[in-house]
Parts: sequence; C-alpha cells; structure tokens
Amino acid sequence: MDKYNILFLPHNIEVTVMKGENLIRAAMDAGVHINASCGGEGVCGKCRVIIEDGNVEGGITEKLDKKDIEKGYRQACLSDVLSDLVVRIPIESEVDAGVLNLQKTPRKTARIWEMNFEELKDKGLFMPPVEKKYLELPEPTSQDNLPDVTRLISFLKAKHDEHRLVVQLSVIRKISDILRQGDFKVTATLARPVQSGRKTHIIHVQPGDTTNRNYAIAVDIGTTTVYAQLVDLISGDALAQFGDYNGQISYGEDIISRIIYAGKPGGLDKLHEVVIATINKLIKKMVKKARIDPDEISTITMAGNTTMTQLMLKVNPKYIRLSPYVAASTLYPPIKAIDLDLTLGDHVTALVYPAISSYVGGDIVAGVMGSGMYRTEELTLFMDIGTNAEIVIGNKDWLACASCSAGPAFEGGGVKFGMRAAKGAIEDFSMDPVSFEPMNITIGNVRPKGICGSGLIIIAATMFEMGVIDNRGKFNRDLNTSRIRETEGIYEYVLAWKHETRIDRDITLTEPDLDNLIRAKGAIYSGCMTLLEEVGLKIQDIDRIYLAGGFGSFVDLEKAMVIGLLPEIDPDRIRFVGNGSLMGAKMSCLTNRIRKDVVEVTKRMTNFELSETPSFMDNYVAALFLPHTDMDQFPKLKARLERRRALQ
Amino acid sequence: MDKYNILFLPHNIEVTVMKGENLIRAAMDAGVHINASCGGEGVCGKCRVIIEDGNVEGGITEKLDKKDIEKGYRQACLSDVLSDLVVRIPIESEVDAGVLNLQKTPRKTARIWEMNFEELKDKGLFMPPVEKKYLELPEPTSQDNLPDVTRLISFLKAKHDEHRLVVQLSVIRKISDILRQGDFKVTATLARPVQSGRKTHIIHVQPGDTTNRNYAIAVDIGTTTVYAQLVDLISGDALAQFGDYNGQISYGEDIISRIIYAGKPGGLDKLHEVVIATINKLIKKMVKKARIDPDEISTITMAGNTTMTQLMLKVNPKYIRLSPYVAASTLYPPIKAIDLDLTLGDHVTALVYPAISSYVGGDIVAGVMGSGMYRTEELTLFMDIGTNAEIVIGNKDWLACASCSAGPAFEGGGVKFGMRAAKGAIEDFSMDPVSFEPMNITIGNVRPKGICGSGLIIIAATMFEMGVIDNRGKFNRDLNTSRIRETEGIYEYVLAWKHETRIDRDITLTEPDLDNLIRAKGAIYSGCMTLLEEVGLKIQDIDRIYLAGGFGSFVDLEKAMVIGLLPEIDPDRIRFVGNGSLMGAKMSCLTNRIRKDVVEVTKRMTNFELSETPSFMDNYVAALFLPHTDMDQFPKLKARLERRRALQ
Repeated sequence: MDKYNILFLPHNIEVTVMKGENLIRAAMDAGVHINASCGGEGVCGKCRVIIEDGNVEGGITEKLDKKDIEKGYRQACLSDVLSDLVVRIPIESEVDAGVLNLQKTPRKTARIWEMNFEELKDKGLFMPPVEKKYLELPEPTSQDNLPDVTRLISFLKAKHDEHRLVVQLSVIRKISDILRQGDFKVTATLARPVQSGRKTHIIHVQPGDTTNRNYAIAVDIGTTTVYAQLVDLISGDALAQFGDYNGQISYGEDIISRIIYAGKPGGLDKLHEVVIATINKLIKKMVKKARIDPDEISTITMAGNTTMTQLMLKVNPKYIRLSPYVAASTLYPPIKAIDLDLTLGDHVTALVYPAISSYVGGDIVAGVMGSGMYRTEELTLFMDIGTNAEIVIGNKDWLACASCSAGPAFEGGGVKFGMRAAKGAIEDFSMDPVSFEPMNITIGNVRPKGICGSGLIIIAATMFEMGVIDNRGKFNRDLNTSRIRETEGIYEYVLAWKHETRIDRDITLTEPDLDNLIRAKGAIYSGCMTLLEEVGLKIQDIDRIYLAGGFGSFVDLEKAMVIGLLPEIDPDRIRFVGNGSLMGAKMSCLTNRIRKDVVEVTKRMTNFELSETPSFMDNYVAALFLPHTDMDQFPKLKARLERRRALQ
Repeated sequence: MDKYNILFLPHNIEVTVMKGENLIRAAMDAGVHINASCGGEGVCGKCRVIIEDGNVEGGITEKLDKKDIEKGYRQACLSDVLSDLVVRIPIESEVDAGVLNLQKTPRKTARIWEMNFEELKDKGLFMPPVEKKYLELPEPTSQDNLPDVTRLISFLKAKHDEHRLVVQLSVIRKISDILRQGDFKVTATLARPVQSGRKTHIIHVQPGDTTNRNYAIAVDIGTTTVYAQLVDLISGDALAQFGDYNGQISYGEDIISRIIYAGKPGGLDKLHEVVIATINKLIKKMVKKARIDPDEISTITMAGNTTMTQLMLKVNPKYIRLSPYVAASTLYPPIKAIDLDLTLGDHVTALVYPAISSYVGGDIVAGVMGSGMYRTEELTLFMDIGTNAEIVIGNKDWLACASCSAGPAFEGGGVKFGMRAAKGAIEDFSMDPVSFEPMNITIGNVRPKGICGSGLIIIAATMFEMGVIDNRGKFNRDLNTSRIRETEGIYEYVLAWKHETRIDRDITLTEPDLDNLIRAKGAIYSGCMTLLEEVGLKIQDIDRIYLAGGFGSFVDLEKAMVIGLLPEIDPDRIRFVGNGSLMGAKMSCLTNRIRKDVVEVTKRMTNFELSETPSFMDNYVAALFLPHTDMDQFPKLKARLERRRALQ
C-alpha cells in the first residue's frame, strides 16, 4: 500500500500515513488538534483545514462556500489522503506561540505480541498433542485373525515405533467397520495426554488417508463474550475466528449475578446449557466458514475465569462469592467433549485451563502460558484489565498473582455516557488549550453515541494535563468555556452538543464519571504496587509489561500513565497480547509443551489475596489521585506539568 | 446335623448319610440299584425295600398292602432316614451272585474349589482396588482458602501419604456441598486403576465416616443367564447373589442369532439395552436383599464371552461370525458405569474382562484368573463345557487356549427329551444288569420331564458299561427287555413310561441322542488332545483339571471318563470351580493383583484356532467312539470292561 507524508502547519509536524487515511485521524496521530465535536461524520463543520498542496478525496460539503473551496478549505473529517499533503490548520482564536509547543503527545498504543508457530517449532516447544498417521494394515486371514484393535496396535508398534498404546471405547465401537470400509488403509489419530503416564491414546480411526486434515478448537469463555478459533494443527494457522455474547448474559450481566442464578433450582444446568450452546454455535459457524468436516476436529481447549469455567463444567460456583471465597477446584481433568454436550466427535477430549484461585482464573493462566512470560529471565508484569483486573508478576523462576475489583468503568459501566468499544464510541480526543474545544474521534467516524474505556482514559488524561480537571478529577470552575457547566449540582464537560450526536442528547463527561475512573485505575495501580511490595520489588525492576484483554489494544499508553493506571515505564517495553485467554487456548491446541508446563506453572504461581494484605488499602487510598499522591512515582509527567506551568 | 449309617443288603454295602436323606438317593450314592422309573415321586411303586432295622419317615403308600407294611416294606423314594438303618433290596428277578459284584461305581463329583479372601490376603495377593479413608479436614479461613479439591488432596498427601492423586469431574461437581454438609469430616473413596501409571483417583466423597460400607458388583454375562454378586469389599463376602435370564433371549437363543439380530437396524442398541436392563434388575434385587445404600457401591467388574461382552459394550460383533472370525477388540478400557447406562453412581468405573479371541472370551479369562491356575507350577487343564467348550492348558509360565463347538447336547439341545438341569430332569441313573430296569432320580424327586446333561452322561456311561449300547452308541438289538424298542426306524430305550412321567409321553433315549452326545464329547476331548499335542504334552502330564460352567458340578466324573468326555485321570485331581466367570469377576472386585495380572495373562495366553489345526479333524474322528478308538487312553475302563466280560 502506498504511504504519503503530511505536513501540518503552522505546527510544522510531519506524519506518514497510508493512502486513503482519513485526514482528521492523521492529525490525531500527529498530535495536531483540530476542533471536531461530531466524531468525524461532518455534521459540526468545525474541522475546516486548508489543503495547501496535494490531493484529498472528499471533504467538500454545504458547510463550505464556493470561495472557501477555491481557497483549498476542506472538512478534515471527510477528506481521505490521496498524495503527499501540506495541510494548514486555521488558527481562528487568539493563540500565543506557546500553544503550538503544547502539542499533545502522539497516541502510542502497545505493540502487538503474536504467537508464531514456526518460532514455536524452532524453539523446540512443539510437541503435537494430537497427530495423524496413515497406515496400510495387512488384511486378516485365517492364519492371522488378530482382533482389529490388536492389528492396529501391533502395526503401530512394529512400523511406527509407537508404544504404550491404549484405545477408548468409541474407537472399539467403530474400528471394525472403518477398517473394512477403507480396505484396511486407514488414518489413526493419536493423542498424547501429558497427564497419563506416557500412554498414547488412539482416539480416532478414519478410512483412507486424512493426515492433511487435522483441526482444533480454542475457546475463551468470557463473562460477556465467548471467542472461538478454529486452528489448523498442520500449519498452526487460525482458519476462522468468531465471537458472540455469552448466552448466560440473559441470566445476569456480571459474575456475581450468574453465581446467584446458578444457586436457583435448575439454574446451574441452565447456565451450563446456554454457554455450551454459545460455544456450539461458534463451532458451527467456524466449520461452515472454513468448509471443514467437523469429524476432523481432534481436540478442544477452553479457558475462562474461575466462575465461567465452573459454570461451563456444571460445577456450582456458589462458594466463590462467599467468604473465604473457596473454589471447588482449580484443576480440571481432561473431559470427553460429548460429556459436556459439545457438538464434537466422541473422540474429542476437552482440555480446560486450570485456575489459580477463585478470582485468578484459567483465562489468566492461559495468558501467562500464551505470552511465554513463565519461560523468560525478564521480570514481567502481566495485566488483564476488565471489571476484575488480574495481575501476574514474575519470570521463569517464580510467579505471583492477585486480582482486584476495578469496577466496570473501563467497560463503560458507571460512566454516564459510557459504552463498550463499538460504533459511535469516542475513542480518541484532543482539546484546544485556549478555547477548550474538543476534537472527538469515534469508532466508525460517525456522530458520537458515548465514550468507551480507551476514550475515557484519553479524555481524562488530556483534561488533567491541560488543567481542566485537578488531581482529584474536579473541573476547574474558573475556565471560560460554555462546555463546562453545572447541571443539578453536578459539574460536567460537554463533549458533543445534542445536534452533533446520534442520541439527541448532549454527551458529557461528569465528575462522578471521573470519580469512578479514578477508583478503577486506583484499584489496579495499587494492586500492582501491593503485589510488587509483597514480592519485595519496585516498579523499576519490571522489564516488561504485557497487557491483555479486549480493552488493551487501543489504550494510549502515555495517557494511561498520565492518569496513573499504568506505572510510568518506557512504552516500548509494553506489549499488547490481545485476548490472552484465547491465545493460550490456541497454544495448548498446538503443543503439548504448554499442556505439560501449565501443571508446573500453576504450582509455581503464588496467589495473594489483596483483601487480606494490610498495605493494599493504604496503596489504594494513595492511588485515588491523578496520577497518584506521590508524584515522584511519575517523574516524566511531573517534569511535563512543571514545564507547562512555566510556559503558561 | 446328625449322620446315620445305612447297610444295604444283600449287597452288604454301607453308606453314611445325613438325617432326613431320601432313601433312594442314599442307595444311588452307595451304588445300589433299586428299580425306580418315576424319578422318586412314588408313582411307579417299584422301589420297594424292607427296613430290617431302624426308622424312616414316610414310605407308606396305597401301593403297599397292610401285610407288606407290617413286614417292613416301604417305598424307598418316599422314605427319609431317621436313624441307622439296615435295608434289604428284594431281589425279585433271578440274579446270579455276579450281579452283586457288578455294582455301579458310586457317583463321584468334582470337589468344589472356592476362593478364600483371607487366604488371598495371606498370600499377599490383596491390593484393594477401591479403598475408603475417613478424613477430618481443617475448615477454610481467609488465611487458608485453598480450593476444596486442593484441600482434600493436600490433606491426603500430608496425613495419609497418598500421592499422584487425581479427581474426576463428578467429584469436583459434588465436593463443595459434601465438605460443608459433613463439616469438613468426610470419607474419600480412592481407586487405584492398575493401568493409569500409579495414579490414585479420588472417585467419591461422602459426608461423615462411611469407611465400614464399601461394596462391589461382580457380573457374569452368559448367553442364557446373567449372574451377579454383591461383594462386601471389607469382609470379602458375597452379601447377595442372583441370576436371571439374559434379556437378549427374546432376540435369539444362541450367539449366532444374537449377532445376526445386532446387524439389523437398531438391533445392536436393543441388545445392549436389554442386557444392561437385566444387570440393573439384578443390582436392584441385590441392593434390596442386602439392604445397602447403592451409593456405597464403588466398583463393578463384568465378564462374558466375546460376543456377550461386545453386545454389552454396544460394539457390533458382526465380524465374529464371518471368516476369519475377527473380534473388534479383546481388550477394553475402564468405562464409567453410567456411560453404559448402568444404574450405579457416577463415581463407579466398570472393569470388563478382556478376551483372548472371538471364541475364547472374558468369561474364560476370568475363570483362569479366579482359579489361580496362572499362578501355580502345576500343569492345569481348565475346561468350560457348554455349547461352546473352551479349553485352557498351562501354568505360571505359559498358557494355551482353544475353543470348540460341542453343540448343545450337554445343555439338553439335540436330545429328544433333553432339558436344562431343572425340576423333573433325570440327573442320576442306574440299571439292573439283568432286567435292564432303570433307577431314575430326578431333580426335585418328582416324576420325570426329561434328561439333563449330567443325567445323559450317566445314562450313556451306564448303558455302555453294561453292554446295552456299543462303542458307537448303538443299542444291543439282542437284549431281552421291552424297554429297548424301534420306533419309526429309530432304536430307543424307554426311561419312563408315559404314566410315570409329568409329560404324559414315554421318555426315551434314542440313538440320534447318543450320536449327538458322542459328537459333543468327541469335540471336547479331541479339542483337549489337539491343544495338548500343539504344546507338546500328553494327558499324563496334566496335574489338575478345573471344570467350570453350570454343568460341571453335577457331573459324575467316572462316568464322564467312561464316555470319553474327560480323560482318565484320578478324580481327586479334578476340581469344580463353578461359575468361573463370576468368580473371576468377584476376585477382580476384591484385589488389584488380579487386575494387574490379567494384562500379563492375556498377553501370555496363546490362542489356537482348532479349525486351522490339521490334526484336529483326525483327533475328532478318533474320538467319535465310546470312549475312544484308542482304548489304551482309558486303561482303567479297559480293565473294568475286561473284568466284566470275564464275569459274564
């Protein structure tokens, strides 16, 4: 794809973008503010820019008169880049030179960490958990009338050096017909469960040669969303991936309400049934999309938090929510997929990721396994941010973990106009330092409907750095802007006026919203700090941070440090692992090395109950400020704020 | 119980019997002939004897006049022994002194071999396959909130030195409630499957202390009858035992017709379903009889022939009856009892005895295991006689087996008045050497309905020794008795006249009956001989014979040797093991040693296909005589016949 350079004036900032990039997003990436309330749908007409050189597509609307258009005026939010450009931002208000030096830092998201199957093989981490062998067996005669299973086992011993072979009843039931259907030329699927004392299980037989078709399913069972991947066990590729709402949502939005529902008569069975139905639906979609024969699926691995895992297994999670928060079990044996009512072959065994405790579940263990943090020397901080945030610190020698309740602010809960990261959510933001006018960018470039988690962080951080809110999240009552107002005793900032939105109401950010945000980030940050203290470390000792969870990939790392959600660390040392749970599940499908290691890792990982750790409350209270009571923990921000104060 | 001596005159033979013994049975045991056609119901009135001293109860009927009664005449078949007796048999025909010397040999059945649990323990063969442990666990606190399963495992490790523990999903599902129900005082059931690499499975948890209640089920799945035993795993006792017809009988009487039915649409499912229903019915009866809680049943072991085993497991046995007679599998993995639809707890694993080949099944392996023949130095011949006869030869170093089709003669099939060993079956017989009048004794001492297998052997042997039939089973046409007659070209002997029977027809033994008997015994004997030849041995090398099967316990061993069914061997070296299959199943319930050994034993046992062994046909043809073409194989009989010939 072609790349073009854009020079923004009068800032004199250059940025490189792909052909066709939207101009207002290019400005945002460059850290150049353009007033824009309507999220990029062209409604507010404020994002007027002058194209001094080069070509754009679009950007001409009835909000520009003929003369403007001739002068090169365009609406940035409707203009797509077609060449190198020189773009001037009209400075319509009185601005001193300092404003241009107060550029927002360009958005910096974490680099994405991805698993590489070939690398896995190169590192010697590849031990196929299921494997197919094509066999041409001798046909029985009256001199050689061994039982069919014995014939198969003897051949595998003699010709393929396979030993300690066992079969399951499903194979015994089908073997006679399949051998004869394939004229004794068959493919046997061998599984090597790591916990069965070096036994190899013959789990499936198929007529003919099917060795080039061998698949697995990886599933992440989230409280809200279930994701599944169809993995090609030969190439390591994901052939299809789908997500869908967890069918349990109708029975309660969060974990606690699910646990309560499970305690009602028939509740546990119901919750089990509907989440299995969700998984089955995803399997069906993937099989259809990839056009494979479902009989070729040889294994499935699932990961989820402790409650989701127990519900999926039809284990009542009731004691998870009662002090002292005891899980029934954190280790789960391999289970036949059909025994869980999964619509898979009777040869398929389901592997379920073990948990660490009631609130550090298999999803986190899967993330730790998938990220490989348990294998390196480097000291790593792994964080999965959601309503509950889970934190793991450690390396190949030791691992410590904890979970804390952050509340739903990052998922749009407890925020007046909060929403999930969906079309219409304000996901990026900048503010004019003089007029305090906003630059809203929404998912899908449409008029805004609300604010998603990553948007909320950017807005709060920007306002804090510009002095629009103080370190307790309170608006500066002295600013000269109509956007800050008091409604029914509550201060708020109007991000978009009623007519610029999709919801026909002013979209605002309120002080209670900011309060919830501060509590959420405070819980997570103090969780990290407490866990570090417990293991005798400081944040400076951390070599690397892994961010997991749907939330993480869009987070502006610098902004997250400004509000004190993340500790101040070189952003290049932060990696986004995405859905760590799904990634770990996928890796377990691909290699037994992970299945083997996970037993050790769960033993090695020490769980800290933060509620039982006296210093946690002190750390929490200290973290209920932007970014923190102790500004020395955020030296870069401290320096920046001091510089800004000197400038103004 | 009191014992009394009876002196029979003029034979001058003394016998000791229990108080209350029937006098005609006492005579039979002594080898004293008394004419008696009606089986012991008092109808024929022929069994008149004179009580010269002592008392009997009964025996007075309208067939005796007052004078006779005063003289001491009684009907033997209705008289029960109340004291020492002197009994004279009236010699009503002309008999020379020789007759008295031609006594029949007293009936000699095999001594019964029984398993002894204490002996098992003494021999170090006791390794409990399931064991209960009572545990008082510490209750969780906020400082110690281990998952419930981890708490259980840690405690077992620390306090009971149990390691390599695993749990199954059923335990995870129930553990939380059970721990709290029992205030963390619980009984855990541990299973130690021999094939799982030294892992110990926690299969069940129960509130409180239930260590004194631990049971198992042993099942023998016969083609006709299913037997089950409820075994107390603490004492080793059988608390209840029941048998019932295999529910599959409605779908075919024999193995072949079952295999055919299984091939019809839905046939396999049906046959599986009905045999499981039979087993479930037996379990229910036993649980009721022994008044135990079915939740206390910890394990089940089943044994049956290869086809019965496959049908029970829902494995289509179709290739068993098609050349080259290939079974799907002869080894079966442990299976959850509920997966077979057995009405047992979800913690119960079913162990199914492995087979050797299509026609040497798990019932035979169970017999070999139960009898212990695989553990001794002594060379043993194990025979299970039925429609199919299975033969095993060997000792602790090697084992060889074969099966042969004997036909149903021993079970009453192919014999005009043949029947199973049930009430009214002639089971014992003697013959007056001069008048050729019979002495019939029936099961239940009632008028005869037919002839059972053991009766058939005694009748044929007696007739052969007395020269009534020749060595090809043909009647001596020259004898002066109305009992031998020709009906529609077929010679037969009338055992009981119409009015003396329960079926209102003359009960006869025909030459075709004898022919079938000779084929049956010929097949079995030649099977033994061929197998011995194949392993390079002679019958003289055999130290011991074990007879298994419902048939075996009543067989008169000397008579079985006379017809050439059994080789001539000291009867004291023959043991009857009864239902070897059930015995082996029971022993597997009691000790893992058997479960461990069976793997080795099945590997060690060499199967010979007699149909593929050229010498079998020669041996068979040679055995189609009474007792055999080669009389030198039966030296004792040969001498006896020569003595008799000299006498006459």
